Amino acid sequence: MFQDFKLVGDRPVAIQVKEYVKRLIIKGALQADQRLPSTREMSGLLKVSRNTVIAAYEGLEDDGFTYAIPGKGSYVLAMAGQSAADNGEANGSVTWQIDWKARMNEYAVSAVELDMMKQGIRAPKGTISFTSIAPDEQLFDLGDVRRAFMDRMAIEGQVLLNYGYAKGYKPLIDYLMHYMENKGVNLSGKDMLITGGFTEGFDIVLSALRPSARRGAAICENPTHHTAIKNLKLQGFEITGIPMERDGIDVERLEAVLQTKNFDLAYLTPSYHNPTGIVMSPAKRSAVMKLMMRYQIPVIEDGFNEELRYSGAHVAPLIATAGQGNGVIYIGSFSKVLFPGLRVGWVLGDRALIDTLESIKRARTIHTSTIDQSILYQYLLNGNFDKYVKKARTEYKRKYELTKACCEAHLPEAQLSGDGGLHMFLTFPTSVNTRQLLKACTERGVIFTPGDKFFIQEGEGTNTLRLGFSRVTDENIERGIQIIGEQARSFLKE
Amino acid sequence: MFQDFKLVGDRPVAIQVKEYVKRLIIKGALQADQRLPSTREMSGLLKVSRNTVIAAYEGLEDDGFTYAIPGKGSYVLAMAGQSAADNGEANGSVTWQIDWKARMNEYAVSAVELDMMKQGIRAPKGTISFTSIAPDEQLFDLGDVRRAFMDRMAIEGQVLLNYGYAKGYKPLIDYLMHYMENKGVNLSGKDMLITGGFTEGFDIVLSALRPSARRGAAICENPTHHTAIKNLKLQGFEITGIPMERDGIDVERLEAVLQTKNFDLAYLTPSYHNPTGIVMSPAKRSAVMKLMMRYQIPVIEDGFNEELRYSGAHVAPLIATAGQGNGVIYIGSFSKVLFPGLRVGWVLGDRALIDTLESIKRARTIHTSTIDQSILYQYLLNGNFDKYVKKARTEYKRKYELTKACCEAHLPEAQLSGDGGLHMFLTFPTSVNTRQLLKACTERGVIFTPGDKFFIQEGEGTNTLRLGFSRVTDENIERGIQIIGEQARSFLKE
Repeated sequence: MFQDFKLVGDRPVAIQVKEYVKRLIIKGALQADQRLPSTREMSGLLKVSRNTVIAAYEGLEDDGFTYAIPGKGSYVLAMAGQSAADNGEANGSVTWQIDWKARMNEYAVSAVELDMMKQGIRAPKGTISFTSIAPDEQLFDLGDVRRAFMDRMAIEGQVLLNYGYAKGYKPLIDYLMHYMENKGVNLSGKDMLITGGFTEGFDIVLSALRPSARRGAAICENPTHHTAIKNLKLQGFEITGIPMERDGIDVERLEAVLQTKNFDLAYLTPSYHNPTGIVMSPAKRSAVMKLMMRYQIPVIEDGFNEELRYSGAHVAPLIATAGQGNGVIYIGSFSKVLFPGLRVGWVLGDRALIDTLESIKRARTIHTSTIDQSILYQYLLNGNFDKYVKKARTEYKRKYELTKACCEAHLPEAQLSGDGGLHMFLTFPTSVNTRQLLKACTERGVIFTPGDKFFIQEGEGTNTLRLGFSRVTDENIERGIQIIGEQARSFLKE
Repeated sequence: MFQDFKLVGDRPVAIQVKEYVKRLIIKGALQADQRLPSTREMSGLLKVSRNTVIAAYEGLEDDGFTYAIPGKGSYVLAMAGQSAADNGEANGSVTWQIDWKARMNEYAVSAVELDMMKQGIRAPKGTISFTSIAPDEQLFDLGDVRRAFMDRMAIEGQVLLNYGYAKGYKPLIDYLMHYMENKGVNLSGKDMLITGGFTEGFDIVLSALRPSARRGAAICENPTHHTAIKNLKLQGFEITGIPMERDGIDVERLEAVLQTKNFDLAYLTPSYHNPTGIVMSPAKRSAVMKLMMRYQIPVIEDGFNEELRYSGAHVAPLIATAGQGNGVIYIGSFSKVLFPGLRVGWVLGDRALIDTLESIKRARTIHTSTIDQSILYQYLLNGNFDKYVKKARTEYKRKYELTKACCEAHLPEAQLSGDGGLHMFLTFPTSVNTRQLLKACTERGVIFTPGDKFFIQEGEGTNTLRLGFSRVTDENIERGIQIIGEQARSFLKE
């Protein structure tokens, strides 16, 4: 015994010794009331210092694995409860197998079926991938993030590490309320809930609004954010998609559809829409809001990528257009522009509504990580955000223009859309099936996101694709789009 | 104009100037195509340096609020979309009010009704409060937490800030799998999902297991963790509670109930049960597991406070008892012993089940904060956890013994339970109604948690209370319990 002890480099040695002995006890190699080697012996056996063994033995006693008899040594304590080693056939428990698959409900089964990550393309190394719309981590200003953390920990470290509030970290809420006011939002009667990103906010809102007795009915742009489609479906909503035009949702179609039946809510992304990148025109914004008011349809506004504008005037969000009205729920996040690893988003809306959502948030996750919230708050307060966005805009705009130029050169047949953000959306003549195109491109080491997954109905958007350029080098943007162009032409000829 | 500009101390001045001008534009005080004062003029008006104004003007242009005419100056850009200021009666949008209350579904209404935080006692300053079972933040080793963060950021800061995985941060999963193996768990066929704490893990498991077509049926200890009761109810489960005895759940009653109908799951807290603090005896663990196996009831095991044992032998969790069997889902968290602000928990169970739960987690929150996960991982790896638990155990054990002694001295009529953790549970003779006792104590500046909220049925446990001692000073523990004793006696006399 004690021959197989192996030290690893990066952990305190006393803890390694403690865990090693624990394992021997757990496995039954050391039995109840058996005496452990003396600290001196053990020190020789494991080739570690005697003080280390003394610390390890103390730890074992603290953890309830051994007991000491003064002057005699340390002995193994009989464990309460059984370990995996000493049950087995005797009590038959190893045979206890549950068929979990059979016990999964519709929601769980759908969650797996709709989980795109589980159907993702595994690309070999060296593949040029346009599938990501995550920010380029090379742009992250790690020094500023570290400073934000250290600043905040120095001010109130103990507070940050203990329980926070379901509603969110107060300084961050105040900051973001002000931030939204600076986008033109009338804050009277409104309040804010901090969530672990856009997705949590959206899912909480849907879980409060889905009708209890029947399936819900939602209206949205078509195509739209595939995660939003997933969450709507998981929460039992039937989705009616309204086609997109060059300047946003087709308002005539929207009105026609609104006349046909009642909807519980609308989900809209008026700025830098995902996946098309389109910014809804001021005229359409006004028209859409009037319709929503007339038909009393609550609007969930996705503030996605609002900060990544590269040209044109500042665009006020729909919730600003609503003035004192309470019909719009705005969900924001800095994930795409800033750090997705910090899971922070916010829901801004009617005060009574937020009060209810707060209780749902508490029931689900108690509260959002205070460390994440406080880092974000201090980072914003220090003025790092403005500095970073300036840098990010410059870099992404350059890539955006390069991508656009390459598409125009190599994919003249494709209609291009995208006024900002980290991706462009391409619509080919209907003869080009982008799933087949993807297959051909994959063989040549280029992948992208086929656009059909952003559409509501199966069979729609089979001639579209999304190109995320944020994490692709200039050289690969050129080469990748050239290859897509070469492959696309063979489909066009057919 | 420009008279009301006021600098605050802690933010970059250029950003304050930028936001000040933005507000004037948003409010309509500065109109489209109006020329801003020259940088020199503005510098004089706002009493800030000219370079600051230049930077602020650049920011305004970047953000799409102004445009520059070379040689002439900066002009206000007409906004796309309307701001709160210029809509109003003209388009009638301010009148758009939705009655959110009427649109809330059962789930949302129940979430509010069951939200204890909204019915909490607001105690005046100076009140001796035994309501919290959160850790004492004075014990937090902030230096070690800071170091863990800096260490991890230095190793892979860019990775930490970009998207992570729904399943969790790989190094942490590996660490915790090993950690659970050291508690005697047989890992074969098992996998782990990282969540934002126990509550999220529990809610995700329930949302996968609740039957689609009918109400679910759950069995649990009575009393039990009130958050668990809430989540079970919110997910539509009917709950059958089994009384607690001094050494854990009443096994005879459990068997009798299991014979009466089918249950979808059992929720059990075998160690340092909340609220009673009882550790289930080895004999009962074995008996319970055999029953669960016979009736094929999946067990959700709450690993609550397992680390805060003060005496006795190490107790293996139920999932260890199950050996290779897959019938137990273990949910763990270090929140109570370590830092609740770090929202990290884990679900350990059958691999296929975890795979499904991963998709639900992704649909709800994408993934748990990588910063939180990586701080926790590095903190564990650095050996800080062992050091901290040793310190925490010493301090909490002292308080635990003090609390126990005070209860024995001042509340001899009450039956005491609690073998560890951060609280004790008291059962009075039935003549003592602890809601009324609380009322009397509140007037004398002492509050605690009435025990009835931990019971399944209304009217149960009206003679019980929970005393959380972790955040109460020694002096106040003594004084507080003395006061409770004085008040309790008046009820006993009646």
